[in-house]
Amino acid sequence: MPQGQPIAVPDDGLTTRQRRNRPVLAVHTGDGKGKSTAAFGLALRGWNQGWRIGVFQFVKSAKWRIGEQTVLERLGRLHEETGEGGPVEWHKMGSGWSWSRKQGEEGDHQTAAVEGWQEIKRRLAAATYDLLVLDEFTYPMTWGWVDVDDVVTTLGNRPGHQHVVITGRGADPRLVEAADLVTEMTKVKHPMDAGQKGQRGIEW
Amino acid sequence: MPQGQPIAVPDDGLTTRQRRNRPVLAVHTGDGKGKSTAAFGLALRGWNQGWRIGVFQFVKSAKWRIGEQTVLERLGRLHEETGEGGPVEWHKMGSGWSWSRKQGEEGDHQTAAVEGWQEIKRRLAAATYDLLVLDEFTYPMTWGWVDVDDVVTTLGNRPGHQHVVITGRGADPRLVEAADLVTEMTKVKHPMDAGQKGQRGIEW
Repeated sequence: MPQGQPIAVPDDGLTTRQRRNRPVLAVHTGDGKGKSTAAFGLALRGWNQGWRIGVFQFVKSAKWRIGEQTVLERLGRLHEETGEGGPVEWHKMGSGWSWSRKQGEEGDHQTAAVEGWQEIKRRLAAATYDLLVLDEFTYPMTWGWVDVDDVVTTLGNRPGHQHVVITGRGADPRLVEAADLVTEMTKVKHPMDAGQKGQRGIEW
Repeated sequence: MPQGQPIAVPDDGLTTRQRRNRPVLAVHTGDGKGKSTAAFGLALRGWNQGWRIGVFQFVKSAKWRIGEQTVLERLGRLHEETGEGGPVEWHKMGSGWSWSRKQGEEGDHQTAAVEGWQEIKRRLAAATYDLLVLDEFTYPMTWGWVDVDDVVTTLGNRPGHQHVVITGRGADPRLVEAADLVTEMTKVKHPMDAGQKGQRGIEW
């Protein structure tokens, strides 16, 4: 994990320190594993820096609970107890977002996705977090539920110093264009190809 | 994160449960970001399952300390204090492995890498961990310091139920062939291309 040297120094009037500390918009896309896992790994690092972490999972089922949620929420409580690291919030679309009065109705995913994005916009405007993970957020964009140009404009104008990581397959080219860091996870080989189902600890 | 269905059910005489619970050899390779981050994310999940986690970092400098190490070691102490999760060991080649009497000499990386692999072989034989992360372990193989066939044979014969994740660029085709799960992280875009250096919390 060597620290690479920049290929070119841009003529943007910023010092190296200013440039280094610019907030990052990262996108993890592709059909392979590790998109979300790597994003939650970044949340882990951020927690260690004392950052305020906000995770927003655009998943359908609220029953789906992954190990990372348990551990990151545990780290959030550790922050409250001892002051170590930073605070952690974990929100899932599932059967309605935690802040929503419609919680419990697992009906209209489109409405829930739109509502999630509206709330994220408010929190971006308020600079509520230092790192936001928008997990599987490419899908509502792909399905046309959330407008890609609105996402790109909103993120481009976000105030303060907020890092954002977006995960999911099929990231829109406009999002890729707007991002600072884009990684494509490609499946080379997966045990499901050999008839093996997902297993605890590896898949969730 | 839906649970996919297997494409084919193999004729290997195993029940679905047996097949599901087979230990996994995973490889994260490619030139993109997220190889190690996703591996440490798996360690996070494994900790949450109560697994014994062993991380072996084949990095040159022991000074290099990433946020994941701090947090996973903290989680290991939490396990000792409260019984939550599992125990965590984190070993770095750096200036000599922690178990080595040669610690402190940052001289011969080849000898250190070979010694690391020999110790990992002993621990695999003893089934010391439930999940081993061999971080940046492709490099000693690429450089001919550690024999790929030895690695493949040793991992193929590992006893018990030990998951192994190997990270690093340029994974040898024999390792890819032997692995159950291979993901290639491909760089689409990186801030260093635009003259931005790595930054705290994002890169380490």
